[in-house]
Order: sequence, then C-alpha cells, then structure tokens
Amino acid sequence: MFEHRWVSLWIALSILLSCGNIFALDDPLPSWNEGTAKNAILQYVKETTQEKDPNYIIPEERIATFDQDGTLWVEQPLYPQFVFILDRIKALAPQHPEWQEEEPFKSILAGEAGSLFQKASMKQMSAIFSAAQTDITTEQYAEIVKAWVKTAIDPKFKKHYTDLVYQPMIEVINLFKKNGFKVYIVSGSGQDFIRTYSEEIYGIPPEQVIGTAEKTSYTYLNGKPVLMKLPQLFFTDDKRGKPEGINLVIGRRPVAAFGNSVGDQQMLEWTQAGKGKRLEMLVHHDDAVREYAYGPESKIGTFSEALMAEAKERGWIVISMKNDWKVIFRK
Amino acid sequence: MFEHRWVSLWIALSILLSCGNIFALDDPLPSWNEGTAKNAILQYVKETTQEKDPNYIIPEERIATFDQDGTLWVEQPLYPQFVFILDRIKALAPQHPEWQEEEPFKSILAGEAGSLFQKASMKQMSAIFSAAQTDITTEQYAEIVKAWVKTAIDPKFKKHYTDLVYQPMIEVINLFKKNGFKVYIVSGSGQDFIRTYSEEIYGIPPEQVIGTAEKTSYTYLNGKPVLMKLPQLFFTDDKRGKPEGINLVIGRRPVAAFGNSVGDQQMLEWTQAGKGKRLEMLVHHDDAVREYAYGPESKIGTFSEALMAEAKERGWIVISMKNDWKVIFRK
Repeated sequence: MFEHRWVSLWIALSILLSCGNIFALDDPLPSWNEGTAKNAILQYVKETTQEKDPNYIIPEERIATFDQDGTLWVEQPLYPQFVFILDRIKALAPQHPEWQEEEPFKSILAGEAGSLFQKASMKQMSAIFSAAQTDITTEQYAEIVKAWVKTAIDPKFKKHYTDLVYQPMIEVINLFKKNGFKVYIVSGSGQDFIRTYSEEIYGIPPEQVIGTAEKTSYTYLNGKPVLMKLPQLFFTDDKRGKPEGINLVIGRRPVAAFGNSVGDQQMLEWTQAGKGKRLEMLVHHDDAVREYAYGPESKIGTFSEALMAEAKERGWIVISMKNDWKVIFRK
Repeated sequence: MFEHRWVSLWIALSILLSCGNIFALDDPLPSWNEGTAKNAILQYVKETTQEKDPNYIIPEERIATFDQDGTLWVEQPLYPQFVFILDRIKALAPQHPEWQEEEPFKSILAGEAGSLFQKASMKQMSAIFSAAQTDITTEQYAEIVKAWVKTAIDPKFKKHYTDLVYQPMIEVINLFKKNGFKVYIVSGSGQDFIRTYSEEIYGIPPEQVIGTAEKTSYTYLNGKPVLMKLPQLFFTDDKRGKPEGINLVIGRRPVAAFGNSVGDQQMLEWTQAGKGKRLEMLVHHDDAVREYAYGPESKIGTFSEALMAEAKERGWIVISMKNDWKVIFRK
C-alpha cells in the first residue's frame, strides 16, 4: 500500500515534469525588474500563444523584429560596424598611398576619426564604406569580419563587442523563440556584417537578419563561382527602409517590434498597424552609470522628442535601462 | 498468461509506431519510378541527415532551393504570372481608354497576346508589368492575386493553376522538410505573387520565397502606414540573379537545388561549388502526352543544349518527366 502510493506519486510527478513548466517555477526574464515593461512582454507572450485567448496568434504569424545597434548591443561612441570600417581602412592603407592626402581617409589615418561621423559628407562616408567592404567576395568579407570581431575591443568597457550584448534583451529573444516566434534582426548596419556572428551571439540564423546591403555580382574567380560585393549600395535598411526591408525579406508584417531610435519609428508604426494584438517597445539609454545616457541630441541612436511623443500617443512602451534592467551586459 | 502476451505485444507495437518510420514501410516518393533520379534524392537525404555518415550536414545548413515555373508547376504556354498580368490589363482597360491605341496594350486588348512574349521589347514588357502590378499597396496586390488564383483556368488542362502543381516535386519538398531542410522557392516570377499562395499549395511560407521584386515605398494612406508597389524593378531573380537573391535573403549557400531551365544554371553552379555533399537536379519536360515536351527552342523554360552539356559534365541529374514520374499533377 505504502509502496503503491510512492509509485503513483512518482508517476504523477514524471507526467507533470514532462509536460513542462506547469508551475512557472522559472522566471524567463530574470534580468528584468518587475514593472510595466517586463509585464507587457510576459503578458503579450502569454495572450498570443494560448489557443483559447482572444489575442491568440497562429504560430506562422508570430514574427518578432529587433533592431540591433542600441537595442541588442552597445552603439556608442560609434556603431561597431563603423569601428570595423575605420580599422579596415587603416589595415588597407599601405596598399593605398594616395589615402595619405585624400579626405576622409587622411583624417582616419591621422587618428582623427572621432568627429568624422559628424562632419563627413554622404559621398565621403560612402567612399569609406566601399573601400572597406567591397571589391571582395562575400566569403572573403565574412572571414575578415569574423577575425575582427574576435579581436576588436570597445574603448570604454574594454571588452569584445560581442560581450556588450544586453542580457535582458537576450532573455526576450529566448522567450519569444521558446514560444514559437520567429525572431529577426532588422538593422541599419550591414546584413553581411551581422550575419557573421548573429547565430553565435544572439541565436539568430543569417536568414533571419535583415540589414543594409551592397549589390553583389555573380562571377567566376579561378573557375569557381563567387559573389563579389560591389561598391554600390543596394538597399538602406533604416527608417522607412525597415518596413520595406521586412516586406522584401519576410513578406509578412511583424506582430512585435523592438527598437531604440528614430531609425526604428516606421518599423514600429508598421507593426502596430496590423490586425490583432501587437507589441512595440523602445529601449531608452538613460543609464549613465552602467552604460550611457543619451537622448535627442545624440547623432548616434537618436531618441528624438518627437519619437518620445509618438511613443506616448501610440502606447509604445519605453524600456528604461536604468530602472527596468537588473544587469546590462550578458553574463 | 495469454492476456499478458497480448498486452506486451500491444505495448511493443505502440512503442515502435510512436518511434516513427522504423520499418520504412512508407515510400516517401510514391509518385516516382525507381531509377537514378529517385535514388539520388533518397540517397542524398539519407546520407546528409545521419550523424555518423561522412556526408552529414548539420540541420542549420540544410537549405534546399526550388525554382517554381516548370519545376514545381506548369509554365506553358505562358508563365501563370504572365497570364495574370494579361488578365489584369484587360480588367483595368476601362480606366485607360488610351490603351486602345497604345502598344503593347492594344494587342493584349485585341486578344493577340500570344505572340507578345516573343515580339515585345523590354520597355514594353516592363510597361505591362508596371501597369498591372504597381501603384497599389502590397496588401491590395495580394488580394487581387488571391482572387485571380481562385478563378483563373489553364487553357490546356482546364484546371486552376494551383492544381497544376507537380505531385512528385511536392513529395520531394515534403521529404526535405521532414528531414530538417529549410525549403525555399527561388523564382524569376514575382515574389509578391508567389507568396500569396506558396504556403497553401507548397507548404512553403512567404519568408521562404525569393523572387523578382519591385521597389516599395513606405507611406501613409488615410493616416495608415502602407507599402506602395512602385513602377520600378528592384531585383530580377533569374540567372545570375538567383545566387545573388539567395545571398540577399538567406545569406547561406544551398546544399540542394532544383531547376528546369537556363534561368537556374547559376543557382545550381553556386550550390555545387560549396563544401560537402551537394545535390543538383533539373526537370526535363519530355512528356508530350501528359504535359509538354519542350527543349532548346522554347522561349519559355529553355533547356538549352549548353545546359544539358553542363549537366552531364558536372554530374547534375536530369529528371525525365516521362520516365521518372508515375503521375504529373497533384492528386
């Protein structure tokens, strides 16, 4: 009799455990403080994934998009891809003696790149981007980026950029993935750049990365087919380019979108304008102690007053890094 | 004793059945005749999905790409999207009295569209495509295509185009999907067109459809954000455009690729040039009785002599519709 009871209990426990997280023992967002932002995320995932809920969304339609720079990892004092480009210009300089006299290359080589982002013309910026990233094959480019990512160190935190990923956002990505959402990065940075590390650091495969892209050309090198990266911008995945890029690559409207700046405004609008329950959130960099506090005046990651006003008007949730996040960086 | 035996047998059977296809009772390609083509597909899937096999491919890298027109469904006497465009020109004609005098619209409205594909200039073709498919929102376009697909009838088989899908290829798609491959359509036809029915008829979601695309523009209509389809070609997903489009959208090289014409040549080359076990196959339309027999001379779905020579040289497998397929169309 006594033995039977234990066996029954053991069977009952086995069944319960095998059915998963019935008692919700684990908090899927442990790095988030309790509050509006955390609740909104948990509530959204709960409502949209329970079949009996009026806000239920079928798995096929569960598309969540995340901006990268400033939303998933550090973007100050310069976007990491921009640091890569400056480093690459320096590395290529010996093959280009003419750069010593030619702007904007001259300033970069003289170590005066800091102000470049503010003062360079679009044409000059495009010259740097092309010099650093094109006229090589897609595979050569990927190798160069991979090597750079392994060695480059952020000037403030003295860590690799891939260590400066926001732990609370990784938890959100994982929560979405666990609940059948397809998670995309939708970034103004280059998609060929992000795709070299997205799977390893975010768990997001290359085919779920949408970003700014150069044209490529299919050709043959030593009899082998290759794709050459051309010095020609194909697509800018920023501002209105974000919904356009989402439509180009995904062909469906996201149901949830996360950003942090004016570059994400249209992606959030586009997401919200669809039918059914939607979620739009903006990361606000208001933590000068643990990361940065920057707002309307910043040229990088601008969170304009108009964006803040639109967020309030439309019910977009602003995430305070200072108040909502227990930790900033990935442990 | 007797009863116990039956219970044991029942338990054993339940376990076996729940473990799936242990005895390989089911042929995953029942519409294929035994032969080189069928064997190649079965062998490929077996080798690349068994962890101990030297040709094993990790699930993340299992990308298979399929051309659509002539590979997954009928493309003669005209690509179905082209028929849609002609129908749409006729439907829009009352709003465009000027078309009665203007080529190529005049010929279409006079019912002389048959030879149009051969004689129209690129500029004229582009004028028809734009008139039929742009200056509307992506959502309006999708509704129009969906309505057309439900009603349009193929002139030879007197069936909906979506019924003229090749059953043997559906079996290949399903076999790949079951074995952890991500299956993409990579087509010269419009991606916005294919995406309206791909999930329903092929089981391939919109985000796994790559095709020719017009530019879109994010704007507002009655205060609601929309994407307008612009009369401007953004990307042609044909010939060398296929590997370029695959790189743009997927960012990985396929391990298996299926086509049927010179438009697929570069996709197959690009697939084959990657590391590890690869599979390249071409559907040959050699069945005048059950479908069509067309070869080097056909303007649509050209299987040139050079392509046949390249297939032989590189070991690409040519599928004979006549000999390899028991049935042609979806049951």
